[in-house]
Amino acid sequence: MNEAVKTLDGWFSLHDFRSIDWPALREVSPENRESMLNELQNFLGDMDITKKMGEGEHTIYSILGQKADLLFFTLRPTLEGLNEVENQLNKLRIADYLLPAYSYISVVELSNYLANHMAKGEDPYENKHVRERLYPELPARKHICFYPMTKKRSLSDNWYMLPMEERQAMIRDHGAIGRTYAGKIKQIIGGSIGLDDFEWGVTLFADDALDFKRIVTEMRFDESSARFAEFGSFLVGNYVATDALQDFFRI
Amino acid sequence: MNEAVKTLDGWFSLHDFRSIDWPALREVSPENRESMLNELQNFLGDMDITKKMGEGEHTIYSILGQKADLLFFTLRPTLEGLNEVENQLNKLRIADYLLPAYSYISVVELSNYLANHMAKGEDPYENKHVRERLYPELPARKHICFYPMTKKRSLSDNWYMLPMEERQAMIRDHGAIGRTYAGKIKQIIGGSIGLDDFEWGVTLFADDALDFKRIVTEMRFDESSARFAEFGSFLVGNYVATDALQDFFRI
Amino acid sequence: MNEAVKTLDGWFSLHDFRSIDWPALREVSPENRESMLNELQNFLGDMDITKKMGEGEHTIYSILGQKADLLFFTLRPTLEGLNEVENQLNKLRIADYLLPAYSYISVVELSNYLANHMAKGEDPYENKHVRERLYPELPARKHICFYPMTKKRSLSDNWYMLPMEERQAMIRDHGAIGRTYAGKIKQIIGGSIGLDDFEWGVTLFADDALDFKRIVTEMRFDESSARFAEFGSFLVGNYVATDALQDFFRI
Amino acid sequence: MNEAVKTLDGWFSLHDFRSIDWPALREVSPENRESMLNELQNFLGDMDITKKMGEGEHTIYSILGQKADLLFFTLRPTLEGLNEVENQLNKLRIADYLLPAYSYISVVELSNYLANHMAKGEDPYENKHVRERLYPELPARKHICFYPMTKKRSLSDNWYMLPMEERQAMIRDHGAIGRTYAGKIKQIIGGSIGLDDFEWGVTLFADDALDFKRIVTEMRFDESSARFAEFGSFLVGNYVATDALQDFFRI
Amino acid sequence: MNEAVKTLDGWFSLHDFRSIDWPALREVSPENRESMLNELQNFLGDMDITKKMGEGEHTIYSILGQKADLLFFTLRPTLEGLNEVENQLNKLRIADYLLPAYSYISVVELSNYLANHMAKGEDPYENKHVRERLYPELPARKHICFYPMTKKRSLSDNWYMLPMEERQAMIRDHGAIGRTYAGKIKQIIGGSIGLDDFEWGVTLFADDALDFKRIVTEMRFDESSARFAEFGSFLVGNYVATDALQDFFRI
Repeated sequence: MNEAVKTLDGWFSLHDFRSIDWPALREVSPENRESMLNELQNFLGDMDITKKMGEGEHTIYSILGQKADLLFFTLRPTLEGLNEVENQLNKLRIADYLLPAYSYISVVELSNYLANHMAKGEDPYENKHVRERLYPELPARKHICFYPMTKKRSLSDNWYMLPMEERQAMIRDHGAIGRTYAGKIKQIIGGSIGLDDFEWGVTLFADDALDFKRIVTEMRFDESSARFAEFGSFLVGNYVATDALQDFFRI
Repeated sequence: MNEAVKTLDGWFSLHDFRSIDWPALREVSPENRESMLNELQNFLGDMDITKKMGEGEHTIYSILGQKADLLFFTLRPTLEGLNEVENQLNKLRIADYLLPAYSYISVVELSNYLANHMAKGEDPYENKHVRERLYPELPARKHICFYPMTKKRSLSDNWYMLPMEERQAMIRDHGAIGRTYAGKIKQIIGGSIGLDDFEWGVTLFADDALDFKRIVTEMRFDESSARFAEFGSFLVGNYVATDALQDFFRI
Repeated sequence: MNEAVKTLDGWFSLHDFRSIDWPALREVSPENRESMLNELQNFLGDMDITKKMGEGEHTIYSILGQKADLLFFTLRPTLEGLNEVENQLNKLRIADYLLPAYSYISVVELSNYLANHMAKGEDPYENKHVRERLYPELPARKHICFYPMTKKRSLSDNWYMLPMEERQAMIRDHGAIGRTYAGKIKQIIGGSIGLDDFEWGVTLFADDALDFKRIVTEMRFDESSARFAEFGSFLVGNYVATDALQDFFRI
Repeated sequence: MNEAVKTLDGWFSLHDFRSIDWPALREVSPENRESMLNELQNFLGDMDITKKMGEGEHTIYSILGQKADLLFFTLRPTLEGLNEVENQLNKLRIADYLLPAYSYISVVELSNYLANHMAKGEDPYENKHVRERLYPELPARKHICFYPMTKKRSLSDNWYMLPMEERQAMIRDHGAIGRTYAGKIKQIIGGSIGLDDFEWGVTLFADDALDFKRIVTEMRFDESSARFAEFGSFLVGNYVATDALQDFFRI
Repeated sequence: MNEAVKTLDGWFSLHDFRSIDWPALREVSPENRESMLNELQNFLGDMDITKKMGEGEHTIYSILGQKADLLFFTLRPTLEGLNEVENQLNKLRIADYLLPAYSYISVVELSNYLANHMAKGEDPYENKHVRERLYPELPARKHICFYPMTKKRSLSDNWYMLPMEERQAMIRDHGAIGRTYAGKIKQIIGGSIGLDDFEWGVTLFADDALDFKRIVTEMRFDESSARFAEFGSFLVGNYVATDALQDFFRI
């Protein structure tokens, strides 16, 4: 089997971006709005239980600009679990005011590099560090940044036609940049070949939003990005604690 | 006639992706909703009869993410038959809540490779193995993956300007990867040159959704994909048995 | 004047693709629906008179998939005549349920090749065979296929920078493929440079829908298509006789 | 200053394409419709006064196909004047039925070629021929054609990297083709670098719609177009005299 | 750290483009409209206080053409502050009539060039000139022009693969053109790598709208733009003083 296929795969992931239909929400009476928000809080309470049982994770961010207003980012062990969360959200009464804006399906992925640094013969899925990354706890950092990307296949700039050694050297350099942001930025890579339109969905968490600009700029000069990366939309947002949702939706 | 035209062609195929209008559906009374679902079940019952008579096939999957909520995938011997199914679905009362999201028209296709492996002089359309693939029974696997694709025609990366031998060698390598997934993945190729916007529509069925990622990733390193494949959207979903539809639509 | 400009130009052509608003149409009472369809039939009756007077042509096809539901394909001697048909259709009561989906404006075109095969000094517009192709009778074939296309102008693959001889040789080869489908496929080329977004709109009529796939596939290996053709959307449909419209719209 | 910047600039221009909401307009009572049309006629009457005072121009065309139904093409000395016309139109009651379809902002432009042919030291803005082209009277020709375009900047086909002499030679050849259509076609070039998405918006007026096809086809073989032109949408239409509007809107 | 990352970063910036829903606004009674506008004025009054406290800036322009009708351009020290303004605006009653049209997120950015011209060891964030540009006062010029842009990464035209010296030389030439417009054009560069879809959002202010055309045209011949710039949409507008809003919204 080709080395590139030998990733480690963790939880499936859904980025569910929504735009709030403020004009329609304004028409809802305060009592109805409160009742709808209570229903949403109950749903999030159930999600918290799932999380405590180690069977998934989720977080909510408020998105900047007109691309979306809210991101519901959810992790689950199976596509069925993910679909269930999505459908449950859609059936909430508040969902009538949460218009679809963008979504992304992927699976938390570790390249086989990490596996290479483990003891010989060890089952990576039993390794504690691997597990913490495949089934991650999402940090409540102040800011989030999401973008999908694909490796280019355009004439002489074709990532998939490069010899494995060249690709590995470039990935190593790329990773070295990433490590200089350790502590500042927490990164989750979602592999999405065969699952969604780009090849990866990247999620970054940081307390300083300028670190998103710094790391993505620095990496853009790196050959693996400069020559080979094609980016989709970038979406940035601010953390919304569950108990801040009431305020968020108040008109 | 050019060798590429000598495909074997089976049933015509419609991938009919729909988004559910949950806000509007919520307004429907439980009685009306049940009556609409009964009408849908009757329609599906009629489709089952067509299937039993060997005159077509169909299946339903619940799609992940915001691109769509449901896929109705139908096979019929003629474009008229396909159009009739489409129009009948549109005239169901539940269809008012099944907004168009994406669709794809193709015809189940076997390349002339398979034909080459048959006894000389045999009519391929009478061959049992060929017939099973041209008029396939759709497996009730847990997951589906659909994507359309086209062979690139861009300067030096032009599939259609390659000598036949090069193309055949690449297709052979490509097929060899596919065979390593035999048993895990069931694949249906729909040819759509002259019928829809891409040249093929690929449908994969699997019980392990990660196999979609594995096969598409592995093939991407294959020259026929790396240099020559242009992909449209990838849509993945979970199987919905007919008797699970009631649950699916319950708000 | 450049040789490419010396086409023969016949009737102006409008491909008017519509999506039916089934949910809204369902709300219309049977009496109103019938009255609306009668108005549509009267309009089509007037179109028939125009056709009998040799002042235009028209046909209706039911389109597969979600891109559109109906195609009204109309030919008229002038842009004013075409616009009038379009506006009359829009003012019909049924038009409230025929949402715009896609349209294409072109003029039936013959390349100057055909002219070259005529007697010297003959006015091509008086030649019977030329007239039959510039002011064509549309065949009631079971299937239609429409697609717009443009010749590429991309670096070394630039049709318009080729010497005239190369272009002519490629067009000759291209035409030779087309002629092998004589009888099976009736083709109408609409020139649309300066009139719509692509350079040509191609309409094919056939009784075997697979012939669309066969001819377009075979031509794709032809250098004039392989290197130089850029295609828009492909739309296929089934013939709808006027007296089948009642059935078509019945919910 | 770079020679390319030394254009002569006249009136600012707005192409305001609208689609008519026929279903909604049908709901309006004949009295209300007439009153709305009277208000529109008054607005156009005010525009006529502006024109008579030499402070602008305007015309209306009925557009073919589904891209739009009407074009309001207006010229004014300032962006403020243009914006005022746009806002006044939007505030008309009929505007509720004139849905935005496409628009384009530019400024009537003459290249410095023309200036080169003037007497030395002459202020071009005082030259009668220059003024007639910068502040043009719009001809009531039967047909209009609008398209935006940009000069390509793609690897070896990069207009802006060419030496000035090459560009000038190509523009000269291009202009020579244009002059062969003098009398048949009236052309207005709107420069839109820094004002809208393409670099120019081209408006052609003709009494024979086939002349649009002829001139654009012939120019496409010209190197400046063949190698360097990127086109947006082409929109064609028929002249609508003010007193024909009543008819146009009658349902 | 790569030199390109060493920008100076000031206030975060939101370009919030809106289209006015005139048909719906017409239905609002004069009293309600006035009350909604009063609420908007109060909101703008609060924004003025923030500005006076040096904690942000904002301005409003009326946009030409159908892309948008109004631009709310706001600067704040944090993404949270920006998000709060956005959400407050969305919760205003007038916002029901201000449909989202386009938005852009960036951070006011100075390249490290300027820093190079400062005294050694000086903290640039304490330098008065730097501060005036990172936390700018927005000029009430008559016209605004906004466009997003990205540096190309396409085969041999790849900005990010150039040696630093080449990039610096090109930026120097580019800046030299800009300086010839000093006084005429005020420019604010928003860096948006990792924040939005393009790499920069450029805002120009001028009293002569033709200066937008002149500077962008002149720069397009500059190698850094000619070979390497990819532009998004260009939007131009006219200044709207707060006390002119009443007039603007009057129907």
